Amino acid sequence: MRHGSDIHAVCDVVVVGAGLSGLAAATRVAARGRSVTVLEARDRVGGRTLNEPVGEGKVVELGGQWVGPTQERVLALLTELGLRTYPTFDDGDKLFEFRGRLHRYRGSVPRLNPLVIADIAQAQLRLDRMAREVPLDRPWAAPRAERWDGETFSSWMRRNVRTEGGRAFCTIVCEGVWAVAPSDVSLLHFLFYVRSGGGLGRLISTEDGAQKWRVEGGTQRIAHHLAARLGDAVRLGAPVRRIRQERDGVTVSTDGTEVRASQVIVAVPPALSVRIAYDPPLPGLRDQLCQRYAQGSVIKTMAVYPEPFWRADGLSGQVTSATGPVKVCFDNSPPGSAPGVLLGFLEGNQARALGRLPVERRREQVLGCFTRFFGPEAADPERYLERAWAEEEWTRGCYGGYLPPGGWTGHGRALREPVGRIHWAGTETATEWNGYLDGALTAGERAADEVLAT
Amino acid sequence: MRHGSDIHAVCDVVVVGAGLSGLAAATRVAARGRSVTVLEARDRVGGRTLNEPVGEGKVVELGGQWVGPTQERVLALLTELGLRTYPTFDDGDKLFEFRGRLHRYRGSVPRLNPLVIADIAQAQLRLDRMAREVPLDRPWAAPRAERWDGETFSSWMRRNVRTEGGRAFCTIVCEGVWAVAPSDVSLLHFLFYVRSGGGLGRLISTEDGAQKWRVEGGTQRIAHHLAARLGDAVRLGAPVRRIRQERDGVTVSTDGTEVRASQVIVAVPPALSVRIAYDPPLPGLRDQLCQRYAQGSVIKTMAVYPEPFWRADGLSGQVTSATGPVKVCFDNSPPGSAPGVLLGFLEGNQARALGRLPVERRREQVLGCFTRFFGPEAADPERYLERAWAEEEWTRGCYGGYLPPGGWTGHGRALREPVGRIHWAGTETATEWNGYLDGALTAGERAADEVLAT
Repeated sequence: MRHGSDIHAVCDVVVVGAGLSGLAAATRVAARGRSVTVLEARDRVGGRTLNEPVGEGKVVELGGQWVGPTQERVLALLTELGLRTYPTFDDGDKLFEFRGRLHRYRGSVPRLNPLVIADIAQAQLRLDRMAREVPLDRPWAAPRAERWDGETFSSWMRRNVRTEGGRAFCTIVCEGVWAVAPSDVSLLHFLFYVRSGGGLGRLISTEDGAQKWRVEGGTQRIAHHLAARLGDAVRLGAPVRRIRQERDGVTVSTDGTEVRASQVIVAVPPALSVRIAYDPPLPGLRDQLCQRYAQGSVIKTMAVYPEPFWRADGLSGQVTSATGPVKVCFDNSPPGSAPGVLLGFLEGNQARALGRLPVERRREQVLGCFTRFFGPEAADPERYLERAWAEEEWTRGCYGGYLPPGGWTGHGRALREPVGRIHWAGTETATEWNGYLDGALTAGERAADEVLAT
Repeated sequence: MRHGSDIHAVCDVVVVGAGLSGLAAATRVAARGRSVTVLEARDRVGGRTLNEPVGEGKVVELGGQWVGPTQERVLALLTELGLRTYPTFDDGDKLFEFRGRLHRYRGSVPRLNPLVIADIAQAQLRLDRMAREVPLDRPWAAPRAERWDGETFSSWMRRNVRTEGGRAFCTIVCEGVWAVAPSDVSLLHFLFYVRSGGGLGRLISTEDGAQKWRVEGGTQRIAHHLAARLGDAVRLGAPVRRIRQERDGVTVSTDGTEVRASQVIVAVPPALSVRIAYDPPLPGLRDQLCQRYAQGSVIKTMAVYPEPFWRADGLSGQVTSATGPVKVCFDNSPPGSAPGVLLGFLEGNQARALGRLPVERRREQVLGCFTRFFGPEAADPERYLERAWAEEEWTRGCYGGYLPPGGWTGHGRALREPVGRIHWAGTETATEWNGYLDGALTAGERAADEVLAT
């Protein structure tokens, strides 16, 4: 990796962004013998994956951290890179907080009122059935696309989920998976994403789903490995400001640097992709798509303790709370017996509201939740960690982007359509496991294949 | 006005954008004896107002063109600038196209099935009643804000408008007023905007509403006059790329120019405001608001004929069509007997779909509509004019911005909140007549007052 500003470099392909998607694209381009330059705005690689040391060589992740079954691409890459996975801590009882009471349970479903359980089950069944009708490469062509893209998940829920408990559960799912409120997201996007991840159960499950495994040493190691192999091709501290297409090539400019290439792959979220100045300007539909493909809102918080004390009480550390502001909680301790780490997500409107407070007030609220869940020992951690992704200039929201109503049917055609020499990557352009590490990789490789085919 | 690049100019206030809002802000700042610099990306002033000559000193407008009763600020400014208004042509019969048939009528309501008329009337009554509950300066505080911001206008319409004709009418209204599909817009935003304009009737009316008057010589003259008074303070061809706040001031950079000031007013739509690089970066909530405050989609088309031949047939030129793609049509002839100009709007999904076609194909479709409405004489105009505002790099969609569900309740607090030395103008920040020329002026002056109070 270089921190440099050599002017007027030349290569075959420029990749904008050294997140997983950009690095995967660059890796594939380089493997085919084309020269590539990756321009990364930050002083690090990895995008939305980010390791944080917690002592003795151990890390936790402040960004994306899980992989799961059927995420074939990322699992294969982990094997290829020699990175090992381990199961998310899932032993012991889970907690469900509802109407101010903590319910302790085993297995995947809390012991709620049977009416609520039935209500949740019918909602999940219907959502999964509807999701199967959404073509992943063109959600706007689903038989009922206009109808589904005409409403939010919230208005669907109001009509189709009858119990208060069922609605609370659906809200937590929406916040937990998309990091948005049910009001924010188009029902069609919700369904697309459910199908993209192989069903609602898979999205929300730890035992057999998207939260099943973690990566030894942290997921950012994937990016570190890919970047190391790319060597000098990756330039840090190089925010791309302008992409100029000419008859015979394309010029990509950062502050004070220009790289000439024949093709460019933009591997940043759609919302950020339009902050680059394009010459000629992007087509209106592409621009307007990006005006609508907003990033979710999540603040990932962790508290580090000398040991995972809750395990001694037979607790798994997993909590689902209808009360909040931390509504989803995990035991996020690294392998071994120390330290113990509790992970709490502030999502959707909780992230938006608490994101405006000073960190001390947010810490107080988060530790208040942990204390409610796990007792007074949780009140005084050795460290409190957090990452508010909306504040990050080069991400502006996690986990991923989502489309509000009208987005897919009005503008979806522009999502992956190349604009001259410009190709679009990033997990937001993935068809399978959109929004996940796996989708980032396949999207990057798909964009690389487009470039290689030219 | 200067086309220059004198480096390191210094003034009290920099205004970003020389649309009506920016010019109004600069005018007020200058009137109070502060020095001001207006930086405009384009080579012209006026933003979303744009005159187009049609011969013999006459013009039509490719952008915003109407003013109406209760728009006190813009009406007062027109008087002050010596610009006269004249009534939109409103004599003769109107046409309503529904189920492939043209209905000719007088007055404000077509002779439809009485059930449809009653259905439209009840919908309008309810929407106006709900709108009155929305506080204009904080829509998120409306008693039912969460509920209304949790759904689209489309899903409200499905529940509350029973007849096919009623839904067609509501769809045309939504497209005509917001330039978006009913699927796109939050019900809460719809209601906010209705109240902001003084009621649904006022928004859609020519006779006594927002389309009542036109401006002699075209609305862009307002900007020309204001800019002329500001003189050298207005710099064209100066796209602002970066705003850096320091302890003792702010530096605003264009390509190759820097201006130092103590305060800055950003008078561009929220969606464009985040394409500027801010140092320090904007707060997350502000950024995420802008990720959601998208611009509408409209292509304004006109056909110019030797004379307004439809008038001889007793037609007003006003058409409302459920068939489309031109769903709203006006006689847009300048004062006098020649030329005759038909104005057709392509809005929402029509603009998105037809915006991807070559201009010849779009022309064909538009003239096809005009011919259906006014006979074969419409097929062969002297000129066909159009402006696809989503394609414009420095606007990226008209008429204005709108919020999808979740926008106001999740992020609205950040809309006008200054960020250090940065203040926000633009019609999208207006409380009264948001989205209109009048709102642009009051928003600019409100931002100026903030600056002057510091």
